[in-house]
Amino acid sequence: MQFHHHGYVSTDPRVQPAAGTGLDRPAELPDEMDVLIVGSGPAGMLLAAQLAQYPSVTTRIVERRPGRLAIGQADGIQARSVETFQAFGFAERITAEAYRISEMNFWAPDTTDRSRIVRTARADDDPHGISEFPHLIVNQARVLDYFGEVAATSPARITPDYGWEFVSLEVGEGDRPVTVTLERTDGPDAGQQRTVRARYVVGCDGARSKVRQVIGRRHIGDQSRHAWGVMDVLAVTDFPDIRIKCAIQSEHGSILHIPREGGHLFRMYVDLGEVPEGDNGKVRTTPLETIISKANAILGQYTLEVKDVAWWSVYEVGHRVTDKFDDIDPGQDGTPHVFICGDACHTHSAKAGQGMNVSMQDGFNLGWKLGSVLTGRAPETLLSTYSAERQEIAQNLIDFDKEWSSLMAKKPEEFDSPEELAEFYTATAEFPAGFMTQYRPSMIVGEATHQDLATGFPVGKRLKSAPVVRIGDAVPAHLGHHARADGRWRIYAFADRDASALREWADWLATASASPVLRFTPADADLDAVFDVKAVYQQDHSEVEMAEIPSVFLPRVGPFGLIDYEKIYAARPDEDIFALRGIDRGGAVVVVRPDQYVAHVLPLSATGELADFFAQHMTEPAESRATTAPLGVAAPVA
Amino acid sequence: MQFHHHGYVSTDPRVQPAAGTGLDRPAELPDEMDVLIVGSGPAGMLLAAQLAQYPSVTTRIVERRPGRLAIGQADGIQARSVETFQAFGFAERITAEAYRISEMNFWAPDTTDRSRIVRTARADDDPHGISEFPHLIVNQARVLDYFGEVAATSPARITPDYGWEFVSLEVGEGDRPVTVTLERTDGPDAGQQRTVRARYVVGCDGARSKVRQVIGRRHIGDQSRHAWGVMDVLAVTDFPDIRIKCAIQSEHGSILHIPREGGHLFRMYVDLGEVPEGDNGKVRTTPLETIISKANAILGQYTLEVKDVAWWSVYEVGHRVTDKFDDIDPGQDGTPHVFICGDACHTHSAKAGQGMNVSMQDGFNLGWKLGSVLTGRAPETLLSTYSAERQEIAQNLIDFDKEWSSLMAKKPEEFDSPEELAEFYTATAEFPAGFMTQYRPSMIVGEATHQDLATGFPVGKRLKSAPVVRIGDAVPAHLGHHARADGRWRIYAFADRDASALREWADWLATASASPVLRFTPADADLDAVFDVKAVYQQDHSEVEMAEIPSVFLPRVGPFGLIDYEKIYAARPDEDIFALRGIDRGGAVVVVRPDQYVAHVLPLSATGELADFFAQHMTEPAESRATTAPLGVAAPVA
Repeated sequence: MQFHHHGYVSTDPRVQPAAGTGLDRPAELPDEMDVLIVGSGPAGMLLAAQLAQYPSVTTRIVERRPGRLAIGQADGIQARSVETFQAFGFAERITAEAYRISEMNFWAPDTTDRSRIVRTARADDDPHGISEFPHLIVNQARVLDYFGEVAATSPARITPDYGWEFVSLEVGEGDRPVTVTLERTDGPDAGQQRTVRARYVVGCDGARSKVRQVIGRRHIGDQSRHAWGVMDVLAVTDFPDIRIKCAIQSEHGSILHIPREGGHLFRMYVDLGEVPEGDNGKVRTTPLETIISKANAILGQYTLEVKDVAWWSVYEVGHRVTDKFDDIDPGQDGTPHVFICGDACHTHSAKAGQGMNVSMQDGFNLGWKLGSVLTGRAPETLLSTYSAERQEIAQNLIDFDKEWSSLMAKKPEEFDSPEELAEFYTATAEFPAGFMTQYRPSMIVGEATHQDLATGFPVGKRLKSAPVVRIGDAVPAHLGHHARADGRWRIYAFADRDASALREWADWLATASASPVLRFTPADADLDAVFDVKAVYQQDHSEVEMAEIPSVFLPRVGPFGLIDYEKIYAARPDEDIFALRGIDRGGAVVVVRPDQYVAHVLPLSATGELADFFAQHMTEPAESRATTAPLGVAAPVA
Repeated sequence: MQFHHHGYVSTDPRVQPAAGTGLDRPAELPDEMDVLIVGSGPAGMLLAAQLAQYPSVTTRIVERRPGRLAIGQADGIQARSVETFQAFGFAERITAEAYRISEMNFWAPDTTDRSRIVRTARADDDPHGISEFPHLIVNQARVLDYFGEVAATSPARITPDYGWEFVSLEVGEGDRPVTVTLERTDGPDAGQQRTVRARYVVGCDGARSKVRQVIGRRHIGDQSRHAWGVMDVLAVTDFPDIRIKCAIQSEHGSILHIPREGGHLFRMYVDLGEVPEGDNGKVRTTPLETIISKANAILGQYTLEVKDVAWWSVYEVGHRVTDKFDDIDPGQDGTPHVFICGDACHTHSAKAGQGMNVSMQDGFNLGWKLGSVLTGRAPETLLSTYSAERQEIAQNLIDFDKEWSSLMAKKPEEFDSPEELAEFYTATAEFPAGFMTQYRPSMIVGEATHQDLATGFPVGKRLKSAPVVRIGDAVPAHLGHHARADGRWRIYAFADRDASALREWADWLATASASPVLRFTPADADLDAVFDVKAVYQQDHSEVEMAEIPSVFLPRVGPFGLIDYEKIYAARPDEDIFALRGIDRGGAVVVVRPDQYVAHVLPLSATGELADFFAQHMTEPAESRATTAPLGVAAPVA
C-alpha cells in the first residue's frame, strides 16, 4: 500500500482523497451523467468500484431496492474472484470471514447395504496449485458491502442511488445519447417517473433484465426438467462431513452440500427429481418440510435436525445465454452505448458456484474500457471488445454448467464408477476456479507469436502471479499483487542476464518519440499515471545495484517528486519466477491489461511491436509527455 | 471467525452484538464505574479493547486530548505485538498498511576512504523463524484506531471519554474504593473538576504519569548524556538502502534509519553526540536544519534532499523503571486497586523499537485479570500477579535498551569489528521481537516439572503457534490463531497414538466433580464459556473418525445447541506439530492463559494436578456446570 507521497496521512490509508466529481458529488440523482449502472448486484457494484477510480467521470448506480441487500442467494467465490478482490484491496478481509473450501468429498450408496451411504472419494480443491488464492463461500451481501466500501472511499466517492427502478431507455444522438426513464420505488414519491441522460448505460439488472429487453437482445435457452430445493440452515447432525463440501449420491436422490461462513450455517441443494410434463411450475410450491425430509432420506443412516432456516427456495434448472451483450445488432457497424452484464447475459444452475463470479468478471472487463474511453485515453471502438470477449465466456459457462448439473442429477447406478464425479471435478478444476478464460487476439490482445519467451504467462489469460522479492526493501512479494484495480496498464520487463537489453529497452521507453509511456501519458500527470512499468531481475536482490537501475523503473511521483521504489523486483533464490513461469533468460516484456489479462508477450528488442500494439487502442492526450517532458535516462539522482 | 450460531448475521461479523453494559452505555462519563483507565495510548486502548469483552463490567477510559491522536511518535511493532493484534482480529489489516522489516543493513566508514560509507552487513530480520508474524513499522495512531474499533464493536461498546484530565485519586473503603478527581480540558466546561468512584484505576498516562506520582511509586534511573535528533520526512536521496532499516556508522556520528509505512516516509534517528555537563537541555533546541545537515554529513558520498517534514524532535536518552506497578507498597499485604501500565512504568530510548510493544503487553497482562476478578471468576489476589510479572520484564527492557543505545552511540573505531553491531542484533533477536518474556511460577504459572512432554512450549513463555489441519473442514490452520483475546483459558489436549488416554482425560473433564470445566463454568453458560478446550490428533485429518471424538471437544453452543466443529485438529503430514514442538507421542496437556502465555504442561493422566492448578486461582460460580448440568460422555448426536 503506497501513501504519504502527497504529505502525511494520519487516518486509514485505504480511504483515498476525494477528487474531481467526488469532491462535490450530489446526494440526489442528477439529470445528466457519464455512466448509469442499473442494478447493484455483483457486476454493478464491481463496476461502480472500478469507475470510482476515474474521478473525472460521473457515474451513478440505481437500485430498485430501498437499501442494502440483507441476504443474497449467491455464495460461491472462486479463486479468480478472490484474486480480483485482492486488486480492489479487500481479499484478506473477506477471506477472514468466509468459509474456505479445502476439499470436496464424494458419497455414494454402500455397495453392501444401499440404504446407507459411504464416502467414496476425497478431492483436494486445488491439487495443481492453480492459484495462490483460496476458494471461498461467503454471502453475496458481504461481497456487495466490500465493493460498496471501495466505491465510497475511492476518489469519485460513488454510492448507490437506492429506490429507483429502470423503466425504459432510448438511444439518440449527441453528447449524452441515452435517455433513460426511471421510477421511484420508495418514499413519498413512489411511482413517480423521471428521465435522465447518460453517455453509457450498463444493465446489471439480473436474469429478467429490462435493459436487455429494451435493447432487443434475446436470452436463448430452455428450462431443464429437473427440480432442486435449496436451503441455508443451522442444524445438528451426525453426518461427519457437515463442514466439508460434498456431493452425496444415494438411492433417494442427491445432495450438493456446501458449508457456509461462520462455522455453523450450511447450504444443501436437494435433488427433487425429474419434473413431469405439464407441471407448470407446480414443483416450485414444494414445502420446506419436504426438502428437509428428502435430505434426511438421502443422508441414509445419518440424521439432520434443522434448528433454524436462514433462507430456502425451490427452482428448476435453466440455461440461457444472451446473443450479444450490447445495443449494436449482430453484424451492424457502430459503437455501443448500452451494455448488459451478469445474470442479464447468462443464467444457469447455482450448483457450479459460477454465477456471481462470471458476473463480476463481466464488470471487470467493461469497467476499465468505459473509464479509458471517458477519460480520452482510448477510442470508442474499444467498447465493442466487451461483448466480443464476454459472450464467448458466457457460452462456455453454460456448456460447463449443463455438464456439471447433469452429472449431479444422475442416479448412482448410471455412473461408470463411484469416482466418476470426483474425477470430473478434479479434471476440470481450472474452469470453475475461473482461470480458463482466454481472450482471442484483438486490438487489446496481441498474437502469441512470442509466447515461448514466457510460457507461464499465456497471452489472453489472466496473469498468474509468482513470488519475487522487492529490491527496494527486500520484502518478499507476489508480483501480481502489487497491481491494483486502478485502470492502469502494466508492463513487466523481465531482465536479461546482465540487464543490458533491459537498459536499452528502458532508454527507448524513456526517450523515444514512439514510446507509449511518453505518447499516452499526459504532460501534467505522474510518469506512471497511465502505465505502471516494472522490472524483474534474474539475480538475488542483494546483487542488483540501485544506481544501475534505469530511472523509468524509479519514477518521481507526487508534488514532492519522490522516488517510487516499489516497481523493481528480483527473483527469489528458492522460487525463481523465471523458472516458475518459463521466462527466457534473454528477457521478455509482458503486457498486462487493467483487468489483469496478459495482452502481449514480446522480446525486449521488439520496441516497434510494443509501440504499434498500444497505438491501435490508445489515444494521445492534447499535451503528452512526448511533446513537453521527455524523460532523461539518468539515474534517479544525477 | 465463528458466527451465525445465534441466527443469521447479514452484516459485518466482526461487529459483535452489544450486551450488558454495552446495551445502554451512557455517552457521558458516569459517577461510578468498575474500571477507570487513565490515558488512551497503546496500553490503555488495548486494555479497553480487552475489557470490552466483559459486558457485565463498566469500563471508562479518559483522555485529556479532545479527540483522536493524529500523529504518534512510536512506530515499531514487534512480531509479538502482531501476534497480539491477531488475537484482537486486526493483524492482517494493519500488516497490509505497515512497512515490513525484512532485513537490517549495517553501514560503516570505507576503510580506504573514511569520508565515504560502505555496507558492511545485511542481516535477515528473523533468520531463525522466531515467529510466523512480521516485524512492522506503523504509526501509533493507527494502532490506537484499530484497538478503538475493537473496543467500540465488542459487546461492552467502549469508546474513550475525551477531554478529561486526571488530577488525583484516593483509595478508601467500600465497593468502589477509589475516588478520582478529573478536570475537563475541553469545551465550555474546561477547567471544571468532578469526582468519580471506581473499583479499579489503571494509569496509562505516560512517562510523566500523575497516577504513578499519586500512589507514591518511584521512577528510578538517570538521564544519559547522549542526544539524538529524530525526524519523519519525505525526501529524495541516492542512498540506496533508503527503504531498508539501517544502522549507519560514520566519521560524523551515526544514524538509525527506519523506513515507514506507505513506501515514501522514513524516520532517521541522528546522533547529536555527547551532551556536555551543564547543558541543561540546551541540546533540545537544536534546529531541524542542523539535524538534516548532520544526516547529510553522516551519509558521506550520498545526499539527502528533504522535501517535507511530518514530525521531528530532539531528545536525550533516559532509562527509568518504576519500583512497583500498583498501589500496594513493596513488602506490604493487601490487594491493589490502582495500577500503572506502559510508559508510566518504563521509559527508555526509542531506538530499539520496544516502548509501545512492552506497554501493550502490560495491558494484555492486566486486562484479563481485571476481567476475571470483576466477573467473579477469580479472587482479588490474582491482581497482585500483575506487578510481580511485569516489573521484571520492564527491568529487562531497560537493561537491553541501555546496551543497544550504547552500541548505537559508539564510534566506528571503538568496535572490535565492523560486524559487531550486526552480530549483536542477530544474536539478541528474540528479545526485541518480544518473545523473551518468561513468567515465573505463581498461582497462574505452573512448575515446569513436565516440560519434557512439550519442549517447544516452554512454561511461562507465550505459546508459539504451529501449523495444523482443522479436522471438521480439512482447512490448514495455525493452532494458536484460533485463540481470540476473549479472556478465556485454553486447554490444548495433544492426543496419544491411539487416543485412548485422550478419551480417558476427556471423560474425566466431562464428568468428574473436580473437573475445572464443570466447576468453574456457570450452569447457564455455554460449555466453552470459560475454558476453550481443544484436541490435537497425531494422525492425518482423514484418519480421525468424527464419531470417535469425545463430546467435550465438540461442545453444543448458542440457543440452538449447535455443534462447534472448530476445536479439533490433526497434525499436518508435511509440518507435524508433534515434531515441530517436541510433543510426546504419549500425549500432553498444554494450558494457555488468556494472554497467550503457557501456564502449564502436564501428562494426560495428571488430572489431579490440572484440577489443583485451576483451583488455586479460580472461583466457583453460585451455580456451576458441576452442580447442575454434568456433561454426558456420549458422541455429539447419540
